[in-house]
Amino acid sequence: MAPFSTLARFREVLAAAPGPDAAARAQAEARNDRLTKPPRSLGRLEDLALWLAEWQGTARPHVDHPQIAVFAGNHGVTARGVSAFPAEVTVQMVANFEAGGAAINQLARAAGARLTVHSLDLDRPTADFTQGPAMTEAECVAALAAGWDAVEAGSDLLVPGEMGIGNTTSAAALACALFGGDARDWVGRGTGVDEAGLARKAEAVEAGLRANPGARGDALEALRCLGGREIAAMAGAVAGARARRVPVILDGFICTAAAAVLERAVPGALDHAQAGHQSAEAAHRALLQRLELDPILTLGMRLGEGSGAAVAIAVARAAAACQSGMASFDEAGVTG
Amino acid sequence: MAPFSTLARFREVLAAAPGPDAAARAQAEARNDRLTKPPRSLGRLEDLALWLAEWQGTARPHVDHPQIAVFAGNHGVTARGVSAFPAEVTVQMVANFEAGGAAINQLARAAGARLTVHSLDLDRPTADFTQGPAMTEAECVAALAAGWDAVEAGSDLLVPGEMGIGNTTSAAALACALFGGDARDWVGRGTGVDEAGLARKAEAVEAGLRANPGARGDALEALRCLGGREIAAMAGAVAGARARRVPVILDGFICTAAAAVLERAVPGALDHAQAGHQSAEAAHRALLQRLELDPILTLGMRLGEGSGAAVAIAVARAAAACQSGMASFDEAGVTG
Repeated sequence: MAPFSTLARFREVLAAAPGPDAAARAQAEARNDRLTKPPRSLGRLEDLALWLAEWQGTARPHVDHPQIAVFAGNHGVTARGVSAFPAEVTVQMVANFEAGGAAINQLARAAGARLTVHSLDLDRPTADFTQGPAMTEAECVAALAAGWDAVEAGSDLLVPGEMGIGNTTSAAALACALFGGDARDWVGRGTGVDEAGLARKAEAVEAGLRANPGARGDALEALRCLGGREIAAMAGAVAGARARRVPVILDGFICTAAAAVLERAVPGALDHAQAGHQSAEAAHRALLQRLELDPILTLGMRLGEGSGAAVAIAVARAAAACQSGMASFDEAGVTG
Repeated sequence: MAPFSTLARFREVLAAAPGPDAAARAQAEARNDRLTKPPRSLGRLEDLALWLAEWQGTARPHVDHPQIAVFAGNHGVTARGVSAFPAEVTVQMVANFEAGGAAINQLARAAGARLTVHSLDLDRPTADFTQGPAMTEAECVAALAAGWDAVEAGSDLLVPGEMGIGNTTSAAALACALFGGDARDWVGRGTGVDEAGLARKAEAVEAGLRANPGARGDALEALRCLGGREIAAMAGAVAGARARRVPVILDGFICTAAAAVLERAVPGALDHAQAGHQSAEAAHRALLQRLELDPILTLGMRLGEGSGAAVAIAVARAAAACQSGMASFDEAGVTG
């Protein structure tokens, strides 16, 4: 059960989270130096292997039980005409996840990952943040706790994903509150709005920041005022993974905005996370740069559901496989 | 058995190879348009799915039986001091492949791919191409045929890989003969040579082009004069895959140089191939640009063995899984 029942307590839990295991990293580096390959010839795979090692606490990291946790929520801001799809698509897509028909089902199977789906009060959309806070503190804490509790025992890698019609607008408002800049810098096409839809998204973000003046100064207050339940749940899952020393691969714009809340609340809170994929949603690149995250993949995806990060699971597995399974020069009798 | 016994006949076979299945592609596009996702939201995965479909000849492509075929050969040009490792490492690394200890063994297992290893006369290095042709026509044809025959029945995707101390110098000479430019444009650090080694590589490439004046005008003659057995075998494997309608994912600089021979011999001969990974070997980017190939991954790898493309197998599998397994809007009852 999540060890917090207020936002203030959540912040304390976040600040008390464990750091990387320096001894495991040193052992992993020493092992990596002896493997049958030219030094550094596996590039990013070596970085990923050492990162897995320091968070899993072993010189031989593994990606045997990856978990993709998809959170779904509904957004009052859809009343502002910010999405190309109607709000009922959220619940329809959750049914599609449960029936196995969505992209994330196929990607989870291809990646050998367990997919868990978490519906968050779909019949109770958050309040329209252009009129005031999207959530009460109790609602925000409940969503954070749902994410925290969703990380299953035995998972050795976590990918948080989301479904929520309207949530690129919520994520844009959140990013704007966390990092400043103009509303237009942070809004994008989402699932495919036209120019008029894009203008409505920017107006909604501006209205949201005006209606929630406390959001600019405090990351957790920004989450409460401008986020959504699935966004808070992703933040909670990333924090819950950290507490359990489970490395995280972040997905696209919405997932990264959720994770950014943690980093802005407690610097270093994302050290156990990598960016899986740079989304085609334009503002994602800016968000990754602000967080100094270098995406593993750039495949032009912009679907959400955890889909981009799900593809990156295979890269993390490849990294762990080389680090943990390769022979050393001595073992293989190869001239080093 | 390979249907050629001369280079002239190989060229004819290459020119007669099958093209993409336009009907299968059209069916795949129609199916893709109905799947439960915003249009184009899977980005490159959609391109890959349609490419798999048109070559496999089905609207529901699959990556169930990928094959990684690694070819090993030795190079007379190692006498010129062009590698950071001694030539005996080639045979030692083949033993490592056979014992399961190399990077490609771990990557093949992680990718669910079958790994086949093909040693090509390791006790008979090619001739030093700075003094004349690396291979006789019979030797070159035998290596092409070994590659052609290595593609196994039932493979639904092929990754060609290589091992051969000295072969970045051979590949650089080949690229220079095929595409022109200066020797220095095409040589790189390989497994890790220093500045002096880099200069020796450039000198060897220049000497090779002087000693083999026929290499500039004819791609297959360039292969014979400047290539190596494993390079010719990779070219043969890519051609053999095309004949069997098996899509190919190319690896790094050496693999791409081998494949470039086919495209320069018969334009369009690489239409069934994608670039899996952009190598850290500097000239690989230039080679991909000349071939108009856009790499799926850029992970800073520079190991060879088929390693970069092996990681990309998972991306192709993800693409096929979405295309073939997702529900349509109608099937899932989702508002489109």
